[in-house]
Amino acid sequence: MDTAIERYVDERREQYLEELRSWIAIPSVSADPAHAADVHRCCERLVQRMEEIGFSARVLPTGGNPLAYGEWLGAPGKPTILIYGHYDVQPADPIELWESPPFEGTVRDGKIYGRGSVDDKGQVLMHFAALEAHLRTRGRLPVNVRIIVEGEEEIGSPNFEAALERYRDLFAADVAIISDTAVFAEDVPSLTTSVRGLVNWEIAVHGPSADTHSGYYGGILRNPIEALARIIASLKDADDRVAVPGFYDGVAELDAAQAAELRALPFDEGTEAAQLGVPALAGERGRLPLERMWFRPTLECNGIWGGYQGPGSKTIIPSWAKAKLSARLVGTQDPERVRALVTEYIKRIAPAGVRVEVQDGGLTRAVVMSRDHAAVGAASRAMQAGFGKAPVYIGTGGSIGPVASFDRILGLPQVMIGVGLPDDQIHAPNEKFNLAQLFGGIATMCVLYDELAAIG
Amino acid sequence: MDTAIERYVDERREQYLEELRSWIAIPSVSADPAHAADVHRCCERLVQRMEEIGFSARVLPTGGNPLAYGEWLGAPGKPTILIYGHYDVQPADPIELWESPPFEGTVRDGKIYGRGSVDDKGQVLMHFAALEAHLRTRGRLPVNVRIIVEGEEEIGSPNFEAALERYRDLFAADVAIISDTAVFAEDVPSLTTSVRGLVNWEIAVHGPSADTHSGYYGGILRNPIEALARIIASLKDADDRVAVPGFYDGVAELDAAQAAELRALPFDEGTEAAQLGVPALAGERGRLPLERMWFRPTLECNGIWGGYQGPGSKTIIPSWAKAKLSARLVGTQDPERVRALVTEYIKRIAPAGVRVEVQDGGLTRAVVMSRDHAAVGAASRAMQAGFGKAPVYIGTGGSIGPVASFDRILGLPQVMIGVGLPDDQIHAPNEKFNLAQLFGGIATMCVLYDELAAIG
Repeated sequence: MDTAIERYVDERREQYLEELRSWIAIPSVSADPAHAADVHRCCERLVQRMEEIGFSARVLPTGGNPLAYGEWLGAPGKPTILIYGHYDVQPADPIELWESPPFEGTVRDGKIYGRGSVDDKGQVLMHFAALEAHLRTRGRLPVNVRIIVEGEEEIGSPNFEAALERYRDLFAADVAIISDTAVFAEDVPSLTTSVRGLVNWEIAVHGPSADTHSGYYGGILRNPIEALARIIASLKDADDRVAVPGFYDGVAELDAAQAAELRALPFDEGTEAAQLGVPALAGERGRLPLERMWFRPTLECNGIWGGYQGPGSKTIIPSWAKAKLSARLVGTQDPERVRALVTEYIKRIAPAGVRVEVQDGGLTRAVVMSRDHAAVGAASRAMQAGFGKAPVYIGTGGSIGPVASFDRILGLPQVMIGVGLPDDQIHAPNEKFNLAQLFGGIATMCVLYDELAAIG
Repeated sequence: MDTAIERYVDERREQYLEELRSWIAIPSVSADPAHAADVHRCCERLVQRMEEIGFSARVLPTGGNPLAYGEWLGAPGKPTILIYGHYDVQPADPIELWESPPFEGTVRDGKIYGRGSVDDKGQVLMHFAALEAHLRTRGRLPVNVRIIVEGEEEIGSPNFEAALERYRDLFAADVAIISDTAVFAEDVPSLTTSVRGLVNWEIAVHGPSADTHSGYYGGILRNPIEALARIIASLKDADDRVAVPGFYDGVAELDAAQAAELRALPFDEGTEAAQLGVPALAGERGRLPLERMWFRPTLECNGIWGGYQGPGSKTIIPSWAKAKLSARLVGTQDPERVRALVTEYIKRIAPAGVRVEVQDGGLTRAVVMSRDHAAVGAASRAMQAGFGKAPVYIGTGGSIGPVASFDRILGLPQVMIGVGLPDDQIHAPNEKFNLAQLFGGIATMCVLYDELAAIG
């Protein structure tokens, strides 16, 4: 790393923490309308900060919460990178489980605790710090940079694609850099090269027009709960493989090298099961656990309800039963096709004697980034510089709407270079960001821009 | 019928409705601890009313909700009858489906609507009205009468057998008269000669210790809802026959005469399906509908819940899922054995990766009453007087715990003489009692006591 830049960031660690504290102090909870003013204040704060660094920045209105946008385009002939992060945060509840106030930013044992500390304010700050270090020590950046910090990631980015269309010119770039993911483990720097897609359904099984007496009618009615249970039980076969014909179209098998890579990662089934509180892990037979989490699609029931749920017993055949389903997609699975296949399958296997309705929603494609892309190589070298060790390549089982949108709308190659840890408690009480990861992340980004300039 | 008695009850129809309204207004829901005070208030109200009629009455404590007990023993040398009913009611939810408030008692189109209107407050009232009419017009009853009105019938009468043992002397009688059943159809007076038994279970399937992110963990966890669905789906085979080994032990096949009797009853599958609001009837393959309702056991899911049930989607693998099950028993099926068989079966088929708990309750035997008993003949004549037509003999798919207890503890012959209609929506929203059935029932009971005196 450039020693002047290295010295610059090393001398300012307290200052970075002070700044992150001030960001955490703005409770920019996008899910809660009561925090609308905080959301806007946070966006304005980031715009102001980008201007201080030397960017041309502004608040970009959307159909929902605004985007904080900044650009520095003073490197003609060099690549343009688009840095993405989000300034909105999850709600803090249950508040009583926090050991220090969620909206303060408290440092304990080498970690800064607070809502948004790592998801995603702290990871946005890594870029701001690295960009400022470049500009203050050299007077310029090695690449052209656009920054887009979103305000609705935690509520599913409902206005993000429309904003990408609306401001398409502002987002013209050669590669997107996304810092909103985690590494595999504390000592395992990682680059995420795949995210899963997402489709949702809600099934309603309608039986008798009202709840009926299970004594009088037990024997002549199809019980809607039982019908729904049969449908759900029929979604997978005895090997826990999804039984919907065509569901796996577009899902590639791991090759030997990929399988070996997964086996080499430190993952202990017993430890994982104990941490999750289950007697044993489960899932599709004959597949590695990390394969099942990252490279295989899933079909899960997220909720079910129907009939009597109160204390004691109520002997009815209920009028209806409902369930929510969602699938995580991988590879080139087509969300619209999967949506239709599952819907048709459910209707086809529905037992006689009831009426079945299926509503669907959510259409997020999986995204797979080739590690052969020069930008991924650049990110790998940057991470090695920042953490002293070459990163491994991992997937994530989650779905990141903006990643799918960059892919679909802008057709951008993407580098997912996040430095959170799996135990950071994102979306939960006591969210934290290890300072070693934060400072390693700043060092990584300082190198990343130079590396990306070199591939131009 | 005695014309003085006939005139007495005919003149008091409005008064009976007023009284029934006041009983319905006490929400004596035994399943809900929040209504404990209402349950006690209802019991006291009935005791007070029996005293007004001329009975010696009192509240009899039990291990749970008390019994309302009354006796009039002024007919030496005559038979003693034990009249049974219950003052507790089912919960009213879903409240929003009621067209008039469940705890008011609203008369519309010749029916009184309200929770407990027919099950069983209205049918208890038939006896109170008939007994009062006898006492006010003749100054005496033709038989000795004990009345027992229970407060836990809707939760499976958990303390009734112990109370029968404890107060055995108070219940000494020659025959039990139970008015908690329905006739076959509006124009088909009926006497019920068999009731099904009942066993309950609650299944809890425990997965991860907290709700988990379905992206990060989807693929390595057994989803508790899915596990529960598999369990429920495995309870029956493709012919809708219960798959639990040994479940059908003690279930007799119909003989040709019984089958012919069932076929002779007016029952149209299409009409029944349309009334219930289902596309078609369902149930065990190769059996008559009335056979399935009265003479075959069932295993039903009465409720299910787990995971996210709100608007939109929440992509979790839930920590747990639960369901309530109940079985209706027939013939000589042993409730304790069935309870154990189903519990063992559920635990045996539970998928790996989750922990399954089964709680059970309710142990009611099926009861079959001989139609050759003189009391059944007396009831038949009373019903003919009350409704102008000789009754048919039917079964009921419901379970009346006390009927089983009278059989087992007191060894009493029993007459099930109820006048509800199949469409009375008991246990459901908009429960009602047709006024023609109520008043026909009062007339029937006025005759019944004289007929029973004659067989003594």
